[in-house]
Amino acid sequence: MVSYHPDLDRIPVEDVLAALGNPVRLFIVRELASSAQPRTCGSLPVSVTKATATHHWRVLRESGITRERRDGRTKVVELRRAELDERFPGLLGPILDATAPRE
Amino acid sequence: MVSYHPDLDRIPVEDVLAALGNPVRLFIVRELASSAQPRTCGSLPVSVTKATATHHWRVLRESGITRERRDGRTKVVELRRAELDERFPGLLGPILDATAPRE
Repeated sequence: MVSYHPDLDRIPVEDVLAALGNPVRLFIVRELASSAQPRTCGSLPVSVTKATATHHWRVLRESGITRERRDGRTKVVELRRAELDERFPGLLGPILDATAPRE
Repeated sequence: MVSYHPDLDRIPVEDVLAALGNPVRLFIVRELASSAQPRTCGSLPVSVTKATATHHWRVLRESGITRERRDGRTKVVELRRAELDERFPGLLGPILDATAPRE
């Protein structure tokens, strides 16, 4: 099965923002952004059920933020960083750099 | 009645992104960003029901993006631009500048 990956030119910025506007998905994106290589989904320490994780992977992929491929029985995922930077210049850096809220 | 306005230091970036990740709310924020003066809610041409508009105003206010005050019987709203720029440097510009998707 080949997963759907949208053309980023057809994605409105609000869809990317909505996808990033969730703590689990933003955590995933930060992990991917700091990884030199694509990651297996299982290598990312998210404390949610498998069904919830699957939902988050799909939201990230369908909003154009990540690219997935199968490597045998493993799902490998990476950030579409260069494409995102071209489509939405300057968007991702400040989001990744945002500091945690004061408790 | 005084509306709740959160301290932006206590707002995580994902809450701001979730608030902006909606076409009506992003439209409102763009209108406010391009207005030299605070706007009355009624002056913004949003094609949603009053109940839906009220919901969007609340989401924007509670995520720290807008500030509201009463002026007689009118509600006046403005972007917390300087505070947002201080809390999340560089975040808002690329979002406001993002181009529409290709049809």
